[in-house]
Amino acid sequence: MEKTSKKVNAAIIVIGNEILSGRTQDQNVVYLSRWLNELGVKVEEVRVIPDIEESIINTINQVRKNFKYVFTTGGIGPTHDDITSRSISKAFNLSYGYHKEAYKILENYYNSGAFNDARKKMAMLPDKALLIFNPSSAAPGFIVENVFCLPGVPSILKSMLGGLNNKILGGKKILSKTISLSTIESDISSSLEKVQNEFKDIEIGSYPFFKQGKVGVSIVIRSTEENKIKVCYNKIKNFIKEKKIKIIEGE
Amino acid sequence: MEKTSKKVNAAIIVIGNEILSGRTQDQNVVYLSRWLNELGVKVEEVRVIPDIEESIINTINQVRKNFKYVFTTGGIGPTHDDITSRSISKAFNLSYGYHKEAYKILENYYNSGAFNDARKKMAMLPDKALLIFNPSSAAPGFIVENVFCLPGVPSILKSMLGGLNNKILGGKKILSKTISLSTIESDISSSLEKVQNEFKDIEIGSYPFFKQGKVGVSIVIRSTEENKIKVCYNKIKNFIKEKKIKIIEGE
Repeated sequence: MEKTSKKVNAAIIVIGNEILSGRTQDQNVVYLSRWLNELGVKVEEVRVIPDIEESIINTINQVRKNFKYVFTTGGIGPTHDDITSRSISKAFNLSYGYHKEAYKILENYYNSGAFNDARKKMAMLPDKALLIFNPSSAAPGFIVENVFCLPGVPSILKSMLGGLNNKILGGKKILSKTISLSTIESDISSSLEKVQNEFKDIEIGSYPFFKQGKVGVSIVIRSTEENKIKVCYNKIKNFIKEKKIKIIEGE
Repeated sequence: MEKTSKKVNAAIIVIGNEILSGRTQDQNVVYLSRWLNELGVKVEEVRVIPDIEESIINTINQVRKNFKYVFTTGGIGPTHDDITSRSISKAFNLSYGYHKEAYKILENYYNSGAFNDARKKMAMLPDKALLIFNPSSAAPGFIVENVFCLPGVPSILKSMLGGLNNKILGGKKILSKTISLSTIESDISSSLEKVQNEFKDIEIGSYPFFKQGKVGVSIVIRSTEENKIKVCYNKIKNFIKEKKIKIIEGE
């Protein structure tokens, strides 16, 4: 495994009691991780934390030093439990108040008279935050240093990522190759371990699956280097052939 | 909000590169959180971390001091990337080797000859770990102090929780009441905030939704005390009535 410090890496902080209680299934982590993979950024930690100011401040101040990028989801709406903007301001010791540009965007978006205090709250951001534009519902996300704050509603979050591509300086794209086998893990584990030991900088994962009454194992090879994946893949195919294991997918 | 330290709380540590890469959608957090809710244990943090020994050791040693219970998922299978048992041993400074009881279970489960080294690896556990029985596929989970280690495959994890109920000393069960409204957050946020300020020890969450072209807001009231939820709920119903908002669900 490569050392964390060498990577263009990211952490995702999911802010929301509804995820912790099990009421809501998070969908943003899968989406963000895949999007970041494409940009050559590897997500190396995810935390789900409650809507508590102290938790948000402490978590942000821990992770923003250890990861190149930090993404938060949730807590930037108009209600009392939306405390991400205020908490991020405190984490960075920035003043928290109306952000001129955000205020203007929201003022233009709503009919005159409809721009009430609750909606105005969505223009309250850390001082000098850069905005992340929201083509779905106007209320912007924002960036402070390496921390990117996005909403929790998946459809809105997705619509905002398009405008962010040029703000992320990714590394090499993380490539992967999956091969699914009609076997069980314990029948391939020693051969697979040998391959892993030979290619220490390649990430090889083994994942058992149960689909429609059938058992199988998916082997996932991940690296930024296509030719290394290829060599590794061929080594794996060799022992598969020797063991006469059926390949279900990934030939 | 009540202080973290007063709660019978838990953290869930999801160990797995496949979740971080976005390859796999985690399903265990929702299931575990709901199961723990029923037992009166509140999940207050979730972390997803990679299959790297150092990450597992550091994370476990951080969270096990801050939470009454810690649950890990993933990494207890027979392959090279299954390093949870070894890492937990190191986190607790316990020796790591064949666990007599686990060895016996697996030896009995497999036909003679089929109990190969890979399968034997699943009997390698921290010294004196308590076993969590696995009615699906024999390979046990285990408990060291307040840390409960479970597998990553959702169906197997679920099958193992039944045997754990009596090992968890929960607090009062966390109750909740949801009311879904045909409105938007900014039209109720100030009224809702007033209710929250009146009931500081009740958790009131506001969650916008978009379903079949309709927008709405779900308000979720959570507490261990049913009568408090009721009083709070009635206050919310009062302002809903005043504002002539339609209740979709939760009357």
